[in-house]
Formats: sequence, structure tokens, C-alpha cells
Amino acid sequence: MRGLMQQDPLILTRFLDRATKLYPNQRIATKTPTGVHRETYEELGDRVGRLASALRGIGVEPGDRVGSFAWNTWRHLEVYFAVPCMGSVLHTLNIRLHPEQVAWIANHAEDRVIVVDDSLLPAFAKVLPHLSTVERIIVMGDGDRAPLGEWAERALDHESLLAEASADFGWPDLDENEACAMCYTSGTTGHPKGVVYSHRSMVLHSYALNMPENFGLTSREVILPVVPMFHANAWGTPFGATLAGATQVYAGQFSADPASLADLVETERVTIAAGVPTVWIGVLQHLDANPRDFSSLHTLICGGSAVPVSLIDAFEKNYGVNVVQAWGMTETGPLGSMSRLLPALEDLPERERLRVRGKQGRIVAGVRFRLLDDDGQEIPWDGKSMGELQVKGNWVAATYYNDERSSDSFVDGWLRTGDVAVADEHGYLQLVDRTKDLVKSGGEWISSVELESALMGHPAVLEAAVIGVPHEKWAERPLACVVVKPGAETTKEDLIAFLAEQFPKWWLPDDVAFLEAIPKTSVGKFDKKVLREDFKTHRLPAG
Amino acid sequence: MRGLMQQDPLILTRFLDRATKLYPNQRIATKTPTGVHRETYEELGDRVGRLASALRGIGVEPGDRVGSFAWNTWRHLEVYFAVPCMGSVLHTLNIRLHPEQVAWIANHAEDRVIVVDDSLLPAFAKVLPHLSTVERIIVMGDGDRAPLGEWAERALDHESLLAEASADFGWPDLDENEACAMCYTSGTTGHPKGVVYSHRSMVLHSYALNMPENFGLTSREVILPVVPMFHANAWGTPFGATLAGATQVYAGQFSADPASLADLVETERVTIAAGVPTVWIGVLQHLDANPRDFSSLHTLICGGSAVPVSLIDAFEKNYGVNVVQAWGMTETGPLGSMSRLLPALEDLPERERLRVRGKQGRIVAGVRFRLLDDDGQEIPWDGKSMGELQVKGNWVAATYYNDERSSDSFVDGWLRTGDVAVADEHGYLQLVDRTKDLVKSGGEWISSVELESALMGHPAVLEAAVIGVPHEKWAERPLACVVVKPGAETTKEDLIAFLAEQFPKWWLPDDVAFLEAIPKTSVGKFDKKVLREDFKTHRLPAG
Repeated sequence: MRGLMQQDPLILTRFLDRATKLYPNQRIATKTPTGVHRETYEELGDRVGRLASALRGIGVEPGDRVGSFAWNTWRHLEVYFAVPCMGSVLHTLNIRLHPEQVAWIANHAEDRVIVVDDSLLPAFAKVLPHLSTVERIIVMGDGDRAPLGEWAERALDHESLLAEASADFGWPDLDENEACAMCYTSGTTGHPKGVVYSHRSMVLHSYALNMPENFGLTSREVILPVVPMFHANAWGTPFGATLAGATQVYAGQFSADPASLADLVETERVTIAAGVPTVWIGVLQHLDANPRDFSSLHTLICGGSAVPVSLIDAFEKNYGVNVVQAWGMTETGPLGSMSRLLPALEDLPERERLRVRGKQGRIVAGVRFRLLDDDGQEIPWDGKSMGELQVKGNWVAATYYNDERSSDSFVDGWLRTGDVAVADEHGYLQLVDRTKDLVKSGGEWISSVELESALMGHPAVLEAAVIGVPHEKWAERPLACVVVKPGAETTKEDLIAFLAEQFPKWWLPDDVAFLEAIPKTSVGKFDKKVLREDFKTHRLPAG
Repeated sequence: MRGLMQQDPLILTRFLDRATKLYPNQRIATKTPTGVHRETYEELGDRVGRLASALRGIGVEPGDRVGSFAWNTWRHLEVYFAVPCMGSVLHTLNIRLHPEQVAWIANHAEDRVIVVDDSLLPAFAKVLPHLSTVERIIVMGDGDRAPLGEWAERALDHESLLAEASADFGWPDLDENEACAMCYTSGTTGHPKGVVYSHRSMVLHSYALNMPENFGLTSREVILPVVPMFHANAWGTPFGATLAGATQVYAGQFSADPASLADLVETERVTIAAGVPTVWIGVLQHLDANPRDFSSLHTLICGGSAVPVSLIDAFEKNYGVNVVQAWGMTETGPLGSMSRLLPALEDLPERERLRVRGKQGRIVAGVRFRLLDDDGQEIPWDGKSMGELQVKGNWVAATYYNDERSSDSFVDGWLRTGDVAVADEHGYLQLVDRTKDLVKSGGEWISSVELESALMGHPAVLEAAVIGVPHEKWAERPLACVVVKPGAETTKEDLIAFLAEQFPKWWLPDDVAFLEAIPKTSVGKFDKKVLREDFKTHRLPAG
């Protein structure tokens, strides 16, 4: 029997319509080199309409990809709505990648137009020669166009386009399964992989984001997303915030400057902010030296990499701010889990509470997860057993865009995250390793990350990477690669004894290799692929 | 360009799965004649599986309608999940209707099975002889089966069925557009009309319900839905609460007893409750005479009829409880609007704030509205202009079930609510009349309800009903039908002068008819249809 309810497509156009009508006076504030730019949702709606009209005017059609190469600003927010709501596809480009990689991504997505911040023209000029599908560049801001060289004449001026265009676009009722945006993941190996979000996925993600136990956005909140708009759509916060009619605050080109971020929190009365741990570590250091009024801020959502419990602790104790860890990936919307304390855990001793909050958290409503062992069996939630983390849900990717590698990452309709995790009895997930870095010893899994963290806690150890090396009996056994601190001394026996205090015997590395340095990838992570290659014939001592 | 995200059906099964796994120890408490029954979500999941297995065992197939004739209890909650999640359709029957009307509804929906509370068997026995499609009765509770008469032998015992059935049902992945539930509206005229909710509509409604500015349910909340489970699915709260992992409290057969409700709030530490104004007026009176610890309660969601500002005021001042008015209909999920104060309005004088909170509120995210005048043009949000309220959204009905009258109620994909409303500049809706009761004078609309309210504020007036009567020049003009209080005296001139202080001249009734009594419908409302018939040839004085 069919339901007899209306089918109203789940499209971002509804958010825009609602925000401009029901929250016309709420503001969007952006730090600029000269001060703070402010616009209201009503003005946003007007300019979004103009931008869509202008884009249509230069030939942008439904389905066309429109790239952005831009900071977090009100203008970028306008692009966030104009492009999807006109039926085209917003493609946020990562301004921090190598120019050739940016161009590869834009070409792979077949971007027809790219909207660029004037202050990024020098960087973008290096991308330009490699672009093969882009026909038009639109420059935001009145900065110098000279870096564009021969492209300068073909570049369009964003504000002029808006001034001449009609604010009344006549938004179509799109199919909710049409693409609204795409983002490329920048893995450490191979080309980036493209995720194509649908209106449906983004709308559902926004509702989930705004649930009180997730980001909990409302019109009372003032949100500062420090996470870049080119990183998984700033975790979806521009959409969630607009749905809620929240006040939005953007740091423009000052997102890496702790003093500017602290300024914004203080002057804009920010209540909730979101970004990677290093940002907040920087802000914390700044605050310790430069006292500010942070009384408006109640929550920092922190993700992108593991959140140090010291950060959680310091913000809570010194500033009364609740640091909440969130986990997700470009492929998961990104919101996958949130590490808020369950009411039942609030009476735990402080140390225990911090330990729970240091986990990646409980899966959010709308997403399911499973942890599978090597045999594809679900493992129990016992806080010990490790399994490959797989997730499923409406804002989880089903496949990558035009990418043969998809078959490795998606199985039976589930996304293989590539992470190994444990779940405790309350369902809190903790990532313990990347699948490929796990040491598989006799059918049991050993987390290289946990051993490394422990080793780096030894007073004589500067760096440590643990890899699996081939072993006749156990298939693989752990080898610790260690760099000793200048002037310090230690031995294999000393380090193994140190680890033996914390781990079961079968986890202990069979050998320790002392190195001058651990090889690193271009983004500074330990390059275990190189290590594994170097040590693939390493002969472990008989044990 | 299509999005490349997973398609995970929006089905209630996900709520059940999530609640049992991630909130296994949260509780569902129900007041019984002997105390308070408690079960956990884990137990709920087990029993829901058993119930589905048992229903399948007696031949209930996907799409089949399963009726319920029951109070708000944990058992009814189990039916709420077992029936939809097995692909069948939950059909909640209104225990307060006339037996023949209940039977008409069950026959129209073609219910195959009805699940009945033992305490309701005497009432249900009067329904039984009129049922034409029901094959099986399942009785919940171990009360006397005697009232069933000859049906007693064919009735199945609910707990015995569960004890013998498997908890492992193997929930199917349903199509999100399949029906999950149906409810009939009991209009004042004609047969009830059936609304058929889909899984999609109910899932989206639940997310909306749990948004922080709507009901804001989380696992920290303890919700007491006093609104019956047969009234628009208790406003969807059982589904929203289960999605959130909230603690649920039910009043069983004591939902009309203020002392029992107060008991539950106090002993179960209820934080949020939902019901019609009369319930809370009763509780307020009880509290004034019997002081209780209501410190856990922060919010009362109040709807179903206009909420007196005196109620809002008293609960806030005396008990620190925020009474929030919500508006909706069986046809709208039901959540349509919520009257929470916008942050910008919090600094208004108290009297103004109460006036705003006394409105039906702002449309919730996910639903749109429009107010149309006689020419089908949208009217401005000026706090004065009246228009017919039409709504659209994923949890708004598209049509009635097998009902020819649907074409009157749905137009261009919008639901005609039958209400006339005004919207103020902030988008707060206020219902001013039913469409059919509006007086249409020379193309302008006059609210009969506002004139009646004013008239009943006159010291000599007991009852007043205002209707439109035919007028040669203005098409219609208002006629006030008034019943004077015993012993009091007034005149037409006196009453018109009284009204003239509050309304523009053209709103004033052209005549006043003094009656012994206003004719009433079976549910006690003014029967304006009879009045209009009685006065259709009434000759208005020349004006």
C-alpha cells in the first residue's frame, strides 16, 4: 500500500527560500583585510539570485560543474547556494594542493567555470595553464587581475556580473537525486577521488547536523566554521546554518591566524565553532597569552584528526567551552559520528570522561556502521576487538566519480572507510589504525598507531613508526622503526620492556630498527609504504 | 548530473534498530492501575520483533491494515513499530468516537486485525457487530474477555502470542514511499477522511520534530505525550522520541486525570510534555491545590486548539515551564508550526511577548505555507490581511484515502487547510477563522471568530455566533446571534457600540439576533450550518 503524502523534493532551494523569508535579518559576517563585512539573509538571497542569473547568462546549464577556488566568505556562501539551486554542481577546489593537482581535479570534474578570490589569483595563475575544460574565470573582489596574465581579459568581474543580473532567477523544482556539489578526497596515494553529493544527501545531512545532539544549530547560534569551505563543504555547516537561520561568521583569508579567530569569537559573539584540532591548539595558545572574552562560545566541534584530550580538558577548564569531537570523511557527508557524553556517563570520574570524549564518538542518526573482521564477520562492541569500519547511509557515497578504484572502496552498498576501529559497549567508536597499516599477526590484528603513540611517550624516543613485516609462522609481525632524540640513549630491550607494561605480549614488536629519520609523505605523514618496502626482507629475530 | 550517494530508504525500521542498539537501557514508563510499568528499548526491540512474527503468523501481510483501539502504553508503542516495520499499516482508531463511526472507519480502511486494550473491551464490544473486514482481534492485558461475547473465543491473547513468537523477525528494507500508518480526521460534517502516512513522511517528520527549535528531543529528554496515540500518532512523538533515544512516559488510561499526570511528571522526572490546552488547564488547577515538584519540566508543547495566553503565563510564572504552542492537522504530519519566540522578540514587553506566543507560530522547516485571497493571490505578511492557509511539504497529505472529496482539499499540490490566517512580519501565523465561517463582505473578509470572541467578552453575553447572511450589495454581511446571560440585559445598539471600540466600522454586524440557545453539533461546537440555514432569508436592516 502506497503512502498518500506529498512528494516535495529534498533540495537546497528550500533552505534558501526559508532563510530569506523567515530569517531575513540574520547576518553573515566575514573578516576582510579592512574590517568585517556583513550581509543579511535577505541580501544573501538577492545576490544568490543575481549570481545564478549571471551564471545562466554566460551559459552555465543544469549539470554543469562550477568550481570555486576561494576562502570562507559571504561570497563563497553565495556560490554555495546559487550553483546547486540553479541545478548546476558546486565544485570546491582545495586551494592548498599543488597547482597541477588542482588542475587535474578541475579537469577530471570537467569544470566549465571557476570562481576565484582575488587574493588567490597568484596561486590560481599556476593552475590556469593546466586547465583543459574551464571556459570562464570569475574573479571575486576588486584586487589586481595582473597575475592572470593573458587570462585577465577573459576573466569576468563577479560584482559587475551581479550588478547587471536579475535577482529573480525563478528557481526550478529540481529532482532531489540530482548532484548539488562535488569534492575530491586527497589521498596519500594515487589521484584524488571525486564524491558527488546529491541535493537529497545534503538536505538530510543538514537536518542531521542540526539535531540537538549533533551540531544543534538554531537561529540563536552564531557559528564560525573555520574548516575551509573546500574541505567537505566546511563539514556542511553553511547548509545546516542556513537551514537553521543561524548567524554565520567566516574568517576569510585569516582562518590560520589565531588572533583573528579570537577577534571574531569576541566581537561577533560566536557560540559554536568548527575546525581541526591544530586550529584550536593555536587559539588556545593565543588565549593563554592574550585574554579575551570567550563567554559567548559554548561549543567547539573538532575533527579531521584525533583530538588531544589535553585540548578538550584545557578549553573546558579555562574557558567553559565544550570541545566535541566529530568524525567523518569527504565520503560521509561528512558527519559520521559525534563524541558527546551520554547522560549515563556524566557521573564517571573526570579522567574516564575525557577518555570517552577522546574517542571518535557514536554514529549519528541516519548513518549505520559495522566493524568486520578478516572473515567479514561483525565483531562485538567490547572495547577491544578491532574491525574494519564500514558505513552506510543517505549521506554516504555510493561510488566515486568516474573512478575504477570504486570497486575497492564500496562493497554490498557499504563504504569501506579504510579505517580500523573498536567500539565500546556504548557504541563509541575509536579509530585505531588505517586498514593498510594494521599488523596482521596470525589472524589477530595489532594497531600500529597504538604502539607508535606509546613509543613516542618514551623519554628517549623522538619518532616511531610501526609496520608489519613478513613472518613465516604468523604471516606478519610488528617491527618498530624508531628515531632516538638527540643526545638520548635507549635499547631494543628497554623499549620492549616499556611497551610490555601497556600491551599484551603478542602485541610487542619482534624487533626495533633505529633510524636517522622516518621517511615522510609530501604532507608530512609517516610514509609507511616506503618503510614496508625498505624492510620487506628484514629478518626478525627468532622469538 | 546525478548524485552518487547511497540510497538508504527513509524507513522507521532504522529508528527501531538504532534505539535498541544505541540506547538499549533508556526506558519507556507507563502508568497502570497498579503502578508504573517499565521496559527498556532493548526489551521494546525484542517484543516488537515478537509481535511482528506473531502478526505474520496469523497471516498479516505487507500492506495489510492493523487497527489499534488502545490507550497510550508501552504495548501500543510496540504496535507502533511492529506493524509499520513489517511493511503493514498501523491504523489507530479513535476510542472516543461513536461505535458505528469507529466501525465505519475500520471498514473503510479494510482493517484485517485490530489490537485492543482489555480495559476498552466494553466500548469495543459495541463496535464489533458493525465490523465487516476484521478477521482477528488481539487483546492486550489480562482483563476480562466477557464483553466480547461470541467473539471472545476468536480473540487472541497478545502476551501469549508474543511468548510463542520469535524475536528475530528479519526486518525487510522497505520502499520509503510505502504506507506506514493511517489516521482518519473526524470532521464535523460527513464521514471521516483517511490520511495515509508513508515511511518517508514519518521519518522526515521525526527529524523535524527533533530539531532544537521544534520539540528538540534528545536522549536527555523525558517526554510525556498526553495527546492520544490515536490523534495524529500522538503528534509523531513516539517516533521522534525513539529516533532520539529519549525516555518515554505514557499515562495509560489516566490521560484525563490531572493528578495522575502530575504524579508522572514528578516521579518520572518528565522534562517535556505534549497535549491539548484543556489537559494543562486541568493540571494547572490541580497543581495550585496540590503543590508538586515540577522542577524537571521545562517545556509543554500545546496544540489541538488555540492556547490561552493565561495558561502560557501561569505555567511560566508559577512553575518556570515554557508553554509552546504548536499547530498542525492530521493532514500535516501533524507538525506544521511552532510558536517559539524569535531571539529578536525576547526584549519585547511581557504583554507583547505573550501576544506573539499566543499565535499558532512560524512554519517549521520542511513545510511551506501560503495565504491566498479570493482571487488566489498571495497576501502580504502584514499582521492584518487574511488569506486561506495552504501548506506543502513531505509530511503533508497529497490526497485522502479513497475519497472523492479530495479534489476540494488539494489544489496544485497544496493542501487547503480550511483555515483562514494572518501572518505577521516575522512569519507568525494566526488562525482567525474557518474558511466556511468567514463572512465575505464586498470582497473583503471578516473573521466570525474574532467578532464572537469580542462579543463573549461583553458582560451580558453568554454565547455568541457570527454568521454571514446574504446581502444584495455586499454579497454577505455579518449577523450576530447572541444568547444573553440569565438575568442580564442588553440591546443591539449596546452590543454594536461595544464592538465598535475594537473593530473597523465595516466589520460591525448589521444586525443582532437574540436566541434562547445557539444550536450545537454532536461534539458541542456552534453549529453554524444550522444557523446559516435558519437565517438565510433574514432581512438585514438597511445600512
